[in-house]
Amino acid sequence: MSVLPKGFTVLVDALNKISGVGPRTAERYAYYLLRSDPSKAKNLAATLEALHESIKICPVTFALIDRDEEVSELYADPSRQKHTVAVVAEPFDIIAMEKMGTYKGTYHVLGGLVSPIDGIEPEHLRIRELISRVGSDKVEEVILATNASIEGETTAVYVQSQLKDMDVKVTRLARGLPIGVDLEYADQITLSRALEGRQEF
Amino acid sequence: MSVLPKGFTVLVDALNKISGVGPRTAERYAYYLLRSDPSKAKNLAATLEALHESIKICPVTFALIDRDEEVSELYADPSRQKHTVAVVAEPFDIIAMEKMGTYKGTYHVLGGLVSPIDGIEPEHLRIRELISRVGSDKVEEVILATNASIEGETTAVYVQSQLKDMDVKVTRLARGLPIGVDLEYADQITLSRALEGRQEF
Repeated sequence: MSVLPKGFTVLVDALNKISGVGPRTAERYAYYLLRSDPSKAKNLAATLEALHESIKICPVTFALIDRDEEVSELYADPSRQKHTVAVVAEPFDIIAMEKMGTYKGTYHVLGGLVSPIDGIEPEHLRIRELISRVGSDKVEEVILATNASIEGETTAVYVQSQLKDMDVKVTRLARGLPIGVDLEYADQITLSRALEGRQEF
Repeated sequence: MSVLPKGFTVLVDALNKISGVGPRTAERYAYYLLRSDPSKAKNLAATLEALHESIKICPVTFALIDRDEEVSELYADPSRQKHTVAVVAEPFDIIAMEKMGTYKGTYHVLGGLVSPIDGIEPEHLRIRELISRVGSDKVEEVILATNASIEGETTAVYVQSQLKDMDVKVTRLARGLPIGVDLEYADQITLSRALEGRQEF
């Protein structure tokens, strides 16, 4: 005999399929939705139903775009410099970069980072597409804006090796002390990278 | 200019409305669903759409039941003793009790705990319904199975005061050392409750 009604357990099971949502969390979410106004669950249902139909991937930058757009709005913007391309792992990294409000170039989404443990090899990433874009867009600078993690560094090194025979400047984001952090609390690796990359004052 | 497509941001907003899901978590869930097979999002959409229609509240025990059931399956089961009623705060507490596999009585869901800070007063709970059930079901024992928190204790004391003129035994779950815990790690309140409630050996 099940203690909970079927309509509830199927929702818990469906929520539980989202990465990062365990069975207890799924129960909590489901119970919250059940107690809330039905419009909340209906609205969520409608957005989920439309999700895949309403979104596609930009054929040039591989950012997420609306189904009815040709290319990314940002790439189509004539004020953005197409000869500068920031290479990021995921579409969300674009948001982080755009929050600065100072970057005037465009983006290229790799679709992940090299991670042999997770079975992600360089050929799974959009590196070939980057190389052809460097040629077709007359790119002058490729900025490797990957995470400061092992996977991020490995990917950056690989992409750089693939671009080294092309007539393009390849740079990457500086590593160093995050702003507002006391020297004594900085970890050793960050500190040694900050020392290596020291700049004239 | 928005960096993310609209179909994505509306899903993030809808997920963000679930209690306990912040904007970053909502983005993570949405992105996971977008990258997964569309059937995952569609299935979740379908269960959410059907949620409120498929579930109702048992008119006797106030547990969650299927729309097509008259009363809770557990209450309808002739092997469950209707003269013993465990009073719990939420439908989920029934699951915890049922996991024991040894309780043979029935349940009564209060629908919360007295918590003046959250604006939950005794009149918001199903205490009147409990009193009338004690009469109609010839209940012999009411077991107060509320949390061992301030709200749980307050609620238990209140329910007990409402039942004291009726011909029914009112008990509550024992407080004491949880099994497997070393004495030296038990908190002071638990320990003093265990001492008060000491039993002959």
